[in-house]
Amino acid sequence: MPYRAPVQDYQFILDHVVGLSRVAATDRFAEATPDMTAAILTEAGRMCDTVLAPLQRAGDLHPARLENGVLRSSPGFAEGYKAIAEGGWVSIAADPEYGGMGLPMALTASVNEMMSAACLSLQLHPLMTQGQIEALEHHASDELKALYLPKLVSGEWAGTMNLTESQAGSDVGALATRAEPNGDGSHAITGQKIYISWGDNDFCENVCHLVLARLPGGAPGTKGISLFLVPKFIPDENGAPGRANDLSVVSLEHKMGLHGSPTCVMQYDGATGWLVGREHDGMRAMFTMMNNARLGVGGQGIGVAEAAFQHALAYAQERRQGRSPIEDGTGTIIDHADIRRMLTVMKAETFAARAIALDCAVAIDMETATEAPEWAARAALLTPIAKAFGTDTGIKVADLGVQVHGGMGYIEETGAAQYLRDVRVTAIYEGTNGIQAMDLVARKLMDDGEAAHALLDEIEARAEAARARLPDLAEPVWQASETLREALDWMLAATDPNQRFAGATPFLAGFARVLGGHYHLAAAMAEDSAGARTHLARFYITRLLPEHQGLLAHATSGADGLYALSPEDLSA
Amino acid sequence: MPYRAPVQDYQFILDHVVGLSRVAATDRFAEATPDMTAAILTEAGRMCDTVLAPLQRAGDLHPARLENGVLRSSPGFAEGYKAIAEGGWVSIAADPEYGGMGLPMALTASVNEMMSAACLSLQLHPLMTQGQIEALEHHASDELKALYLPKLVSGEWAGTMNLTESQAGSDVGALATRAEPNGDGSHAITGQKIYISWGDNDFCENVCHLVLARLPGGAPGTKGISLFLVPKFIPDENGAPGRANDLSVVSLEHKMGLHGSPTCVMQYDGATGWLVGREHDGMRAMFTMMNNARLGVGGQGIGVAEAAFQHALAYAQERRQGRSPIEDGTGTIIDHADIRRMLTVMKAETFAARAIALDCAVAIDMETATEAPEWAARAALLTPIAKAFGTDTGIKVADLGVQVHGGMGYIEETGAAQYLRDVRVTAIYEGTNGIQAMDLVARKLMDDGEAAHALLDEIEARAEAARARLPDLAEPVWQASETLREALDWMLAATDPNQRFAGATPFLAGFARVLGGHYHLAAAMAEDSAGARTHLARFYITRLLPEHQGLLAHATSGADGLYALSPEDLSA
Repeated sequence: MPYRAPVQDYQFILDHVVGLSRVAATDRFAEATPDMTAAILTEAGRMCDTVLAPLQRAGDLHPARLENGVLRSSPGFAEGYKAIAEGGWVSIAADPEYGGMGLPMALTASVNEMMSAACLSLQLHPLMTQGQIEALEHHASDELKALYLPKLVSGEWAGTMNLTESQAGSDVGALATRAEPNGDGSHAITGQKIYISWGDNDFCENVCHLVLARLPGGAPGTKGISLFLVPKFIPDENGAPGRANDLSVVSLEHKMGLHGSPTCVMQYDGATGWLVGREHDGMRAMFTMMNNARLGVGGQGIGVAEAAFQHALAYAQERRQGRSPIEDGTGTIIDHADIRRMLTVMKAETFAARAIALDCAVAIDMETATEAPEWAARAALLTPIAKAFGTDTGIKVADLGVQVHGGMGYIEETGAAQYLRDVRVTAIYEGTNGIQAMDLVARKLMDDGEAAHALLDEIEARAEAARARLPDLAEPVWQASETLREALDWMLAATDPNQRFAGATPFLAGFARVLGGHYHLAAAMAEDSAGARTHLARFYITRLLPEHQGLLAHATSGADGLYALSPEDLSA
Repeated sequence: MPYRAPVQDYQFILDHVVGLSRVAATDRFAEATPDMTAAILTEAGRMCDTVLAPLQRAGDLHPARLENGVLRSSPGFAEGYKAIAEGGWVSIAADPEYGGMGLPMALTASVNEMMSAACLSLQLHPLMTQGQIEALEHHASDELKALYLPKLVSGEWAGTMNLTESQAGSDVGALATRAEPNGDGSHAITGQKIYISWGDNDFCENVCHLVLARLPGGAPGTKGISLFLVPKFIPDENGAPGRANDLSVVSLEHKMGLHGSPTCVMQYDGATGWLVGREHDGMRAMFTMMNNARLGVGGQGIGVAEAAFQHALAYAQERRQGRSPIEDGTGTIIDHADIRRMLTVMKAETFAARAIALDCAVAIDMETATEAPEWAARAALLTPIAKAFGTDTGIKVADLGVQVHGGMGYIEETGAAQYLRDVRVTAIYEGTNGIQAMDLVARKLMDDGEAAHALLDEIEARAEAARARLPDLAEPVWQASETLREALDWMLAATDPNQRFAGATPFLAGFARVLGGHYHLAAAMAEDSAGARTHLARFYITRLLPEHQGLLAHATSGADGLYALSPEDLSA
């Protein structure tokens, strides 16, 4: 069975779990009516099912390659991209002034997730362009906007992000790329960037690089960094791609997976670029781009989780092995309890991760529509959780998908292993999941935990409301929220940041566990009588939610016991 | 930094945690003196470090291949195998009558683990031969033993296991391979077997296949299966390899990893074979081979965990990124709390898995030496835990190793990804980890939980003894054991096997968590004053042991809520 976009699940979560109707009630997003939402999801789903999903294996079997400096993409990718661009799927959130649809991020997140599920390698391409569009909308001059945005929004041109250098990874401030003023308003960019996803392609007229570099007089560290737009071909007076810029793809990385997506080493040799935002203020613009990219990468994990789940489910419903252990079984391995357990974990986790990501997207939309600081704080709080839990879920679910297949899971032609190899990178790029966790316990709690406490209040209020009808589900969710609140207060009381960092990763995982219970409970409450969503919620709340206890015990163990083991002790 | 066999860690665990001295005190293993043990570990460690570890990447980059039906192994593997065979490392546990050293399984397990760490693909080869030696020692006729065992023990000939067929995986009883008597005491074997690890090689004189097949009149299912020894070359009157048998390697699988180890489809076209054990009783002989192979595969996971840990630790001590967050730090990323957490988790988990496996090996040795049923029951109980937890640990630790490397972890030349790709199969082959968990909660509790309760008694006795000196470690271990006892009693009370199976995997994981606490506590108690082993024990008991609660809550949730979600619900 090939991948089918779970259109109804998005619709259900948007309508009944994360409250998209609040977004549609704003002036800004008045067009996002239920009819419009349904049409977008259905149409995008059809494109993913029929055009993108068939490209998934080709990207793995025939990786993008560099031939005499020219990038050759995987077979079929050019046609697949054309379908994405022509459908408008690069830019449904973009400003209508430049050709976008101006629709909510909640829809973009849903569509991005489907595209990731169908073909992760190719989907990464428009995801990068989306981030660039957003950065330019917020920070570029009117001239740059007018010149570049229509081409990016239409998908004729592509966008990339250039942050990392070999000695500047998580520590972006260590970068060495330089920018020198040319005297005509442009700058000459010189340096080498690594890990540039889709640093080039053979199906867009132009590729626009957003490059972090240091201007003369720029302070060391992140404070002295500026952002530049550096196109592959410099637009001529008509805005058409003109002369080739002084930049090149040096080489492609040989990666564990995601072979259809070329990961480039980019060389800039005095390439012409234009400043985006103010001098020495590039990190602010980059953060705009990164925050939404982080939600996007979370969605990549969730998309792959969905695809790996469907793939394993189809296998389990087909493979016969041993006698059925249950009456009226199907006779396939789905009857076996341990296989059924794995599949149900996969479904329950995917739902939880999806609800977290879509709730984050709704918060972004409400922030956009209302400019209310509470929504901004909620979006900021949920972003690292959506990224890290979404990608961890992608890896966990793809790993279970391999296991459901037994020996076949380890054989590449089955496709289960590819999901695991492909999705593994999502926990690393766009800020490793460790960086996300540190962001959560440091920057995102700088409001003295106000946003986090507000979210816990909401969880507990919903649990209270559910107590009469679903006491066996409401009570554990309420209790878990209280345990999380204690851990949160422990974090807030820890003044040494390293005390927080020592438990940041399990704290984020525990937070996500509790949020999962919250959204599953909402789903169960949306059913008139106990059906599949209630059964799934009960499965999650009974069997997976209890993990929050161990995670939060770990989260609040502090740094002292951690550093008690010296590097020498570890080496012994 | 290349891999270095952790000789001192084996020595410490054998001496202070699992009590190898009890084994050495038996007549059967009187030769296993502390001096002998130290010499064996040191010598094997040197061979692993200098000969095998350099082959690890070559196996991945230059997979074994089939050229016109002839198998070509990866570069250097022939020389590596020669060092294994000449060192006697194929057969240190084998009967001295046939050239083995007759040493304890605890030493074999340690040496196998080191070899797995150094080069998993190649180590799988002698592991298969070891299993065959053991099966022949227990079940073959004296003639077969005299002809085959000296060659297998010396490593001149290799052994393989042939169980799986395309429709008979976990359900071995569904196999279709036939055996027909030739009238001269031999049989003609016809059928196709899949997933045959090292089904051929180009560095042994002969390859001996143990093949499960059905004799005429054999009942359907596992009860009608017999076991045959089918050599690639039929020994002539002098015992030298003679005419080629009617068997061939049809093809090799393209796998996610373990590329140095050829996974063969084997075709038998009336190949000549000899019965091992009694007619229709092949499963019993196969189980002998499988049980020790399961411990061996657990050791593969642990070996890779150790190698991935050392590899990540070396990177973390070298890579500079950002300012050190601690005073007197090294200036490398090992100073960062989240990196330090990952590395310490890796070390703590590897220790726990290793101690479980070596305790299992000691139980096997005590069973061999004393024939006491308590030791047999303990070995049987610990085997599925050693296999599943050892391999799950290998996967978890290798995955953390990728994460410690950040972006570099996803680039193949770094080597971190290879550990993850290679070790992934260990949770699948030799009985998937789901099958191990079912074995634990069904077959291994058929003694009404006597062996399990005895083990919990031992855990609690040790915790009691530790309470005076290390109360903060002893108390949580004691409490965890009580929680495990409740879960065990829940399992024993569940008469419908599917009620147990629904929670089998989390039950096994929870059991392993508690055992890990037990062994870490023993390690801490072996220190005169609180040093590195006490710090590591505290880390594990404070931060990882609490996971047992969530796991055991899941374990005892039963089947009803699991089957409440129908296949249609999962597909919706």
